Amino acid sequence: MAALHDAVLAELDEVGLGRLTMEGIARRAGTPKTTLYRRWAAPEEVLLDAIAAAYPVEEPSPAADDLRGDLIAALELLLEWSRHPTARAVQAIMLERHRHPGLVERLQGVFDRSGRRFTATVLQHYARLGHVDPALVTPVVEEIGEALVFKHIVDAGEEPTRQRLAEIVDQAILPAVGIRPVGADY
Amino acid sequence: MAALHDAVLAELDEVGLGRLTMEGIARRAGTPKTTLYRRWAAPEEVLLDAIAAAYPVEEPSPAADDLRGDLIAALELLLEWSRHPTARAVQAIMLERHRHPGLVERLQGVFDRSGRRFTATVLQHYARLGHVDPALVTPVVEEIGEALVFKHIVDAGEEPTRQRLAEIVDQAILPAVGIRPVGADY
Repeated sequence: MAALHDAVLAELDEVGLGRLTMEGIARRAGTPKTTLYRRWAAPEEVLLDAIAAAYPVEEPSPAADDLRGDLIAALELLLEWSRHPTARAVQAIMLERHRHPGLVERLQGVFDRSGRRFTATVLQHYARLGHVDPALVTPVVEEIGEALVFKHIVDAGEEPTRQRLAEIVDQAILPAVGIRPVGADY
Repeated sequence: MAALHDAVLAELDEVGLGRLTMEGIARRAGTPKTTLYRRWAAPEEVLLDAIAAAYPVEEPSPAADDLRGDLIAALELLLEWSRHPTARAVQAIMLERHRHPGLVERLQGVFDRSGRRFTATVLQHYARLGHVDPALVTPVVEEIGEALVFKHIVDAGEEPTRQRLAEIVDQAILPAVGIRPVGADY
């Protein structure tokens, strides 16, 4: 499975989404095409499967009760994922969304079903614990951290430092859920 | 001037940043190349000039004293700008930043000199008036609105509605500067 996932990602990098074929994936993996068809109906299915398999699982640490630390860890996990070949695959699907609308929807389904949404997972966990007002954990607030990390990568052309991640948590996410960290030390 | 700006943007759309030439711009504008060289030393200069000319000017309305309304207006101005051909030019420069590092720096210079930075302009204006704690207007906070708008465009493949812009202001930007709107009505 991992070899087939690697093959579809490598093939995508080389030929692009529009020219992804079962033949190409099979050739690259050194596997008969029939093996692929036994599991998947189309090359897009192989790709979605590879993306789902690589999507990281966050583990909020309930025992620690450390909202700030868990938010920073969630953004670090996002950075880690953004270095994986599947992050490029997701970007490719997004950039060609007008040519592949169904694929974008199914990709969203992969993310939703996995329930793995970085800072949103952490915020909802602490809302369930009663440490954060659930009414403040809105779709907009769930995206603040990810949006600021992506903007930093695009504008600066490099990943934010750990200090920048802490600033994003202290100055943007925590205030949005009604928490103003006092004397945060940078 | 406007005709030459249009020409460089149209030429960029067609041939890309790496193959932008004075010849191509002149041909498209129906102008002798010498006219271009009288004003600019290289095709990138024409492009930067076109971007600078189109960059919008925000006008915070000091008399109105309406921080929330001015923030929403700043995000609407950002959307308006994102539809202009120069926004595509800026994106092209960002995407090819590794091939043109000097150009990205000079582009940043254009933005900084113009002092036109959407929500940042508004936040700094109200900080000067003493209505917002200047210590809270950090580089991270200045980017919250723009980051959430960009993420929405990438994820949803369409512009945020005016209601979404209001939610971004009420749920993310205002709390970050210590203001929690009460009973915001969506």
